[in-house]
Amino acid sequence: MNRSVFFISDGTGITAETLGHSLLTQFGCVTFEQVTLPYVDTPERAHAAVRKINEVAAENGNKPIIIDTIVDKDIRRIIANANGCMFDVFETFVGKLEQELGVKPANTVGKHTVDTLAYKTRIDAVHFALDNDDGARTRQYDSADIILIGVSRSGKTPTCIYLAMQFGIRAANYPLTEDDLDGENLPKSLKEHRNKLFGLMIDAERLTAIRNERKANSRYASAQQCQQEIRAIEGIYIKEKIPFLDVSEMSVEEIATRIIQVSGLKRRIG
Amino acid sequence: MNRSVFFISDGTGITAETLGHSLLTQFGCVTFEQVTLPYVDTPERAHAAVRKINEVAAENGNKPIIIDTIVDKDIRRIIANANGCMFDVFETFVGKLEQELGVKPANTVGKHTVDTLAYKTRIDAVHFALDNDDGARTRQYDSADIILIGVSRSGKTPTCIYLAMQFGIRAANYPLTEDDLDGENLPKSLKEHRNKLFGLMIDAERLTAIRNERKANSRYASAQQCQQEIRAIEGIYIKEKIPFLDVSEMSVEEIATRIIQVSGLKRRIG
Repeated sequence: MNRSVFFISDGTGITAETLGHSLLTQFGCVTFEQVTLPYVDTPERAHAAVRKINEVAAENGNKPIIIDTIVDKDIRRIIANANGCMFDVFETFVGKLEQELGVKPANTVGKHTVDTLAYKTRIDAVHFALDNDDGARTRQYDSADIILIGVSRSGKTPTCIYLAMQFGIRAANYPLTEDDLDGENLPKSLKEHRNKLFGLMIDAERLTAIRNERKANSRYASAQQCQQEIRAIEGIYIKEKIPFLDVSEMSVEEIATRIIQVSGLKRRIG
Repeated sequence: MNRSVFFISDGTGITAETLGHSLLTQFGCVTFEQVTLPYVDTPERAHAAVRKINEVAAENGNKPIIIDTIVDKDIRRIIANANGCMFDVFETFVGKLEQELGVKPANTVGKHTVDTLAYKTRIDAVHFALDNDDGARTRQYDSADIILIGVSRSGKTPTCIYLAMQFGIRAANYPLTEDDLDGENLPKSLKEHRNKLFGLMIDAERLTAIRNERKANSRYASAQQCQQEIRAIEGIYIKEKIPFLDVSEMSVEEIATRIIQVSGLKRRIG
């Protein structure tokens, strides 16, 4: 079963998409064809969106789902004329919020005048993650909020970047290599910052698959090598009392939020 | 005026937060104290959340706003007993969706069994962005989806990373330095990929402020230097017919989605 979905916004469309994805995962048996229409902020663009929706409706023989976060009522009204089934987020929630808060809503598009401090915190954290990726440097660990460790390709890099981008957290990462693992010992540069360490764990099968995508049929990607590294690193985590998380079945978002939850790390933005 | 807000989820809480932030920006005169409670997926955790909400309600003398994306009805019912004003996203939308689709919802937490292909696309794009940051390499430009250019500190790096993380797009970036700008000429490695180039523009005042944060009172951060670089790069953009965007007032999300819109770039995920 197929159904078209339109995410429509007068901004980036990210809120409509995020909410939409959450809702649609509840209907796993339906295949959704998703279209995002950002910056629908004039009547002309709204009419163009309506034409597009109506075309798709005629083509498919059913009403597309419309999930919109448009602030302006007049533009919303134009979209409401489309041959679709509309889920209007602001219409649904803003009235009740207004009542509860006793304050009138701005009714203007979230011109989130860039919050300069938050922007700086975030960009600095991103640059920190890049500079301190993959054990490249250890001398900035004093100013790290957290240092992720794990075997190669366990998801450290994207997690650090996500922690920076989403939460402004300064996250470094350090791959434990065979040398470290053989001795079942932490490198000195890590020992000094033991209270900032957080381990990623991954199951051998998934690690083998990921590494094979990268270097097929190499020793690095072999099941034996992966198993050995994972056993060794788990030993280190336990021996050194480093908190760790099995990330085999997790998305990057989930790894990041779980780490914050488990470690009690403070967000710097958001 | 202050009001506490709880974002509650049985998952990461990202959907509740994203939606909540959009709604709350409509009430700019209220200062919201925001707390995210992720992974509230057992009755025990739900009761703990209720206790927390009730404490805050008693302390503040008003009802906290609760924005939740909890899938499980029983857990939702526990939260509904809290002394708060609840905006229940799934309760609100899933029933209507069920009716429109004629399909029962799963009613299980979005155990988004990691989509292996999407995961790989995303992680590869993140590594691509890192490897091709700041003009570090140019030999992978054949496999780039887009190459961002701009003066130093105009937002290229975080935008590339966001494009990778959110949309799986392989984005490289190359800073145009004084040498390039003086000659008003594109380096050869860029000329060969002219159709992938996209320029970032920033106003001199903002650039000066950003650079001063980094290297205070340097020539690099001086108003004159910034103005000169910006005038020169605009000349190049126009002469070489490179599409460009003024990002001075934009968040990273907005820069990324605008680039996709203007360039017609295809998302690889999401």
